[in-house]
Amino acid sequence: MIAGFRPWRTDYIFMNIHELICKKRDGRSLEGREIGFIIGRYMAGKITESQMAAFLMAVVIKGMTLEETVYLTREMMNSGEVLHFDDLSGPVVDKHSTGGVGDKISLILLPIAIECGLHVPMISGRALGFTGGTLDKLESIPGMITALLPERIEKHVYELGGCFSAQTGRIVPADKKMYALRDSTATVESIPLIVSSILSKKFAEGVDGVVVDVKCGRGAFMRELQDARELSLYLESVGSEMGFRVRTVISSMDEPLGRAVGNALEVEESIRTLQGMGPEDCLELTHRLVSEMLCLGGMVSGIDEGKERSREALESGRAFERFLKIVAAQGGNLDLHRKGFGLPRAKVSEPLLSSSDGYVTRIDSRIIGEAVRDLGGGRRKMDDSVDHAVGLVVLKRRGDRISRGEHICEIHASSKTAAIEAKNRIINAFEIADDPVLPFPLFLDESS
Amino acid sequence: MIAGFRPWRTDYIFMNIHELICKKRDGRSLEGREIGFIIGRYMAGKITESQMAAFLMAVVIKGMTLEETVYLTREMMNSGEVLHFDDLSGPVVDKHSTGGVGDKISLILLPIAIECGLHVPMISGRALGFTGGTLDKLESIPGMITALLPERIEKHVYELGGCFSAQTGRIVPADKKMYALRDSTATVESIPLIVSSILSKKFAEGVDGVVVDVKCGRGAFMRELQDARELSLYLESVGSEMGFRVRTVISSMDEPLGRAVGNALEVEESIRTLQGMGPEDCLELTHRLVSEMLCLGGMVSGIDEGKERSREALESGRAFERFLKIVAAQGGNLDLHRKGFGLPRAKVSEPLLSSSDGYVTRIDSRIIGEAVRDLGGGRRKMDDSVDHAVGLVVLKRRGDRISRGEHICEIHASSKTAAIEAKNRIINAFEIADDPVLPFPLFLDESS
Repeated sequence: MIAGFRPWRTDYIFMNIHELICKKRDGRSLEGREIGFIIGRYMAGKITESQMAAFLMAVVIKGMTLEETVYLTREMMNSGEVLHFDDLSGPVVDKHSTGGVGDKISLILLPIAIECGLHVPMISGRALGFTGGTLDKLESIPGMITALLPERIEKHVYELGGCFSAQTGRIVPADKKMYALRDSTATVESIPLIVSSILSKKFAEGVDGVVVDVKCGRGAFMRELQDARELSLYLESVGSEMGFRVRTVISSMDEPLGRAVGNALEVEESIRTLQGMGPEDCLELTHRLVSEMLCLGGMVSGIDEGKERSREALESGRAFERFLKIVAAQGGNLDLHRKGFGLPRAKVSEPLLSSSDGYVTRIDSRIIGEAVRDLGGGRRKMDDSVDHAVGLVVLKRRGDRISRGEHICEIHASSKTAAIEAKNRIINAFEIADDPVLPFPLFLDESS
Repeated sequence: MIAGFRPWRTDYIFMNIHELICKKRDGRSLEGREIGFIIGRYMAGKITESQMAAFLMAVVIKGMTLEETVYLTREMMNSGEVLHFDDLSGPVVDKHSTGGVGDKISLILLPIAIECGLHVPMISGRALGFTGGTLDKLESIPGMITALLPERIEKHVYELGGCFSAQTGRIVPADKKMYALRDSTATVESIPLIVSSILSKKFAEGVDGVVVDVKCGRGAFMRELQDARELSLYLESVGSEMGFRVRTVISSMDEPLGRAVGNALEVEESIRTLQGMGPEDCLELTHRLVSEMLCLGGMVSGIDEGKERSREALESGRAFERFLKIVAAQGGNLDLHRKGFGLPRAKVSEPLLSSSDGYVTRIDSRIIGEAVRDLGGGRRKMDDSVDHAVGLVVLKRRGDRISRGEHICEIHASSKTAAIEAKNRIINAFEIADDPVLPFPLFLDESS
């Protein structure tokens, strides 16, 4: 563990934030030491939140070069402690998703990857906007602690191969502070800022590399394939400039992933998946991502071999055992003999019935994500609290045949009123037509 | 007096600041009620300084339409009290300058304009950056009070024809709050923001119209004539859309105005000008601006008649008498029998000598302005304090013949060290060449 943060450097005395904001505002590129000055002085409280907000807005509008993004990522990474794993038997590789609806892949993937020989010190995020967050999902397990100190993360990686952790104040504090500000000032949507936020956190975990699942579609931040491709390219280029291996997968987020959307419901679905009863799309995506991680770590000769290894780890039951060990090590209490595994259950469960016969042609994941958020399962602002029990179970997928009166979705809500309100919105997420359609492809990048 | 501020409006509940920042960030235009929401909620403390900073940066980069600027100006004007003068014998007209070096015209112009039959409830600003501020100049007069409550401004206008006032918290508080934020976040340089800041303050004074002296050149915020023309056009258009008469003059700010730069030194020069001993450029600019004010108020048939009326008011001594009355009414103590009129004098006075024979070809007003600021006569940040006594007296102008060893400038400083430091910088402001040159024209607009 190395403290990389330099609170004061002599070359700072010749710079001032006003001129640097002007420089970016006027579309010019910043030098490495200038970006170092901004991050260093911001973390020291010498640059105000307002000045940083103005600077970030200038970045969102005027952009940053690849070089600037590399400097920014490095300065953010070095704003706190950086983990180092030197004497492990296998490579240290993590996975990151840019966020979607029903995306519980981290829960399934982490134990599989460890069983395949990787070490995964995973630091995850929280629900925001219409997307869910791995930490909120995990925290629906009674007793589960995700706020792990760096020492604890290291211990879990050495002893169990990995863990599920929150971003604590000691690792990449610059990202934590900047993200809260970006969230409130409409400065989230910027490829250089997204890239530096993702990679600074991952690289501070002490990984050899990271696989990023770039979500694209209605229920993702990136709606257009072109933007997803640009983000992928930026992630890979910045990684390579910094000497880290980054591989990306672009996957569809037009429909929710799996059937469950909502914290406890998604944990339940993850457990069932680890027990061998998972929905097809979750399995397909998990195996692809584990395989990319194994390729990145040099553990397999190609994607197909990696997928095979991933399937073996899942189907043998080893991954499920690993998941239970990690949850227990982090204080989580699951009761596998009870219905719902002892996870919180919502008071009200209401079915949504189809009003016509036909084929499901569209399930709008953004409407689903917003409905779950507004049931209490997500956040509008970063300091909102979350109801772990609420959510939806989507019973049909695009391409499925459906009859009038058949259950299309289950709504789990804290009250009858909330359930009815959600129902009136969710009905708009489903499109039913007379003619059958093919499911959407899961992967949108050429290499899949 | 009407309280125009509406702290809460029912249509606000359908808006949120995040979406409005996104809208401007993405280059779209805001509606009137959206701009009303932003200003209203910002003043109510419901929009944070950071959110406003991000919004303002988006405005600086993406701009605002004329229509948006009109809405913004109106909302800012209505953020506080708006003065009304209904039963006066003559029109109410003010003058505003966008700021320059040595610009003491307000002090000379106000009493002349009143003597010509106008009413002038002038609200002025403070020194910032390399430019001076009328209030700081006036406050070098012992006892002078510029923080006048709206009731007091009205009383002075009715009884004396006008006054010199600061922007108090009750008039256009939105501008006061936004300007402090813009100053610290590099969001000053924006034509729509400059226009709304100037006009909201002036229109809140209850004027029929305003003449704006748009400064252009090295020692002004607008360095290019094209930008100055755009600002002029915006000022006139926004005024006309709001039903106020606005006339603009574009005047050169390549050289300092007059000879004195620095608070007390400029008051002294203003008094001498009112006594009939003023420098040519100050007289020329004052008479032009008074004449524009008279044209705007419908008091004269043309510019030449207006200038003639202005000259009469000055040369008769009536304007000087008026100035003394206004200063006395605001508590100021001038001693006309003493050298320097009882104004504060700097401890050290040092001459700057010419090192060569020739003709002065350039006096860089920006260097002069920055030197006076750094002698203590101005401000880098809005909360810096000001030393009224320090400054420069520039003894030569472009086109003047000068001999080696002749005094080119006098430096008034608080210490010998400060004087020497200033001297080393100021020397670079003067260019001397062998061949004679013509003075620069004072007016840069076509109509002059």
